[in-house]
Amino acid sequence: MAHIQVPEGVPGIRSLVMFRPESGKPLYELAQVLLRGGDSTLSEAERELIAAYVSSRNECMFCMSSHAAASRYLFQDRKQVVDIVLEDYQSAEISDKLKSLLNIAGKVQISGKSVNENDVADARKHGATDREIHDTVLIAATFCMFNRYVDGLASFTPTDPKAYEKWVNAWAKRDMFYRNS
Amino acid sequence: MAHIQVPEGVPGIRSLVMFRPESGKPLYELAQVLLRGGDSTLSEAERELIAAYVSSRNECMFCMSSHAAASRYLFQDRKQVVDIVLEDYQSAEISDKLKSLLNIAGKVQISGKSVNENDVADARKHGATDREIHDTVLIAATFCMFNRYVDGLASFTPTDPKAYEKWVNAWAKRDMFYRNS
Repeated sequence: MAHIQVPEGVPGIRSLVMFRPESGKPLYELAQVLLRGGDSTLSEAERELIAAYVSSRNECMFCMSSHAAASRYLFQDRKQVVDIVLEDYQSAEISDKLKSLLNIAGKVQISGKSVNENDVADARKHGATDREIHDTVLIAATFCMFNRYVDGLASFTPTDPKAYEKWVNAWAKRDMFYRNS
Repeated sequence: MAHIQVPEGVPGIRSLVMFRPESGKPLYELAQVLLRGGDSTLSEAERELIAAYVSSRNECMFCMSSHAAASRYLFQDRKQVVDIVLEDYQSAEISDKLKSLLNIAGKVQISGKSVNENDVADARKHGATDREIHDTVLIAATFCMFNRYVDGLASFTPTDPKAYEKWVNAWAKRDMFYRNS
């Protein structure tokens, strides 16, 4: 049971946004800009992967499951890469640039100050731009917020992985990611 | 020096919002709703105090200094309470309800899952409403994001406490808290 009276059976952040739509609006807008914004040179699959990776490190089952499902959907025929990254990203078949960005995201999950000049230099060496470094830090920081929001209020977390897949398929069809519906 | 090329000499999150206004917009809106929204039963001084307390626990000097300065300004003739809370909130002359909410905020700073039923029951016993518990968790989670964003990109952090006071006075006069200017 959630710590506060939210609509029953509505999972994760959706129940919290229904409880308090005024704060839900900028929260959804932030997720939309970071994960769906069309002008990014990181693919949507990669951005969802960063979100899932940070959520996994924070042990937030709801955010990890939903963003891993979104990332698998977006990686299409390479979808197995998602679970390998969540297990041990160094062994995954992803670019060195993405590995260096996942390293930064993992540091942000610990604390902002853990990100050092070597982490950033390493990302740059592998071709990461300022914008990609910025977005990686902000996506990681944003999920440190979402994870705490969802778990700090003990919102409803479905345990069947199929539930997350079903939503991702439904949302993708209707282009409804991160909208309040 | 910041990890990415942001406008020089512009402090903390303001430089990051200038770098990427699209994400800055929902970030400012979120801070505005949570810290300035007029329909809250927590005072603005109390909400700024929760923000400063979490930022202090995350050792984010910029956010801690600016929100402590805002809270001191808003507490008016009780402004000394802010530094006592940051040192040891149990010894401060604040309500038991606010102490129980600071306990929840401190748990959120560690992780969402650390908030347990006893923490919530204690807050309720002291008169906290669902809305106040919700807002405390979301303010704490939001500052776990802002702190990581500001420090993860090593944005400029003035060390003179007077700088923060000066901004708070200037912003308060122009009602410009959390606007992009």
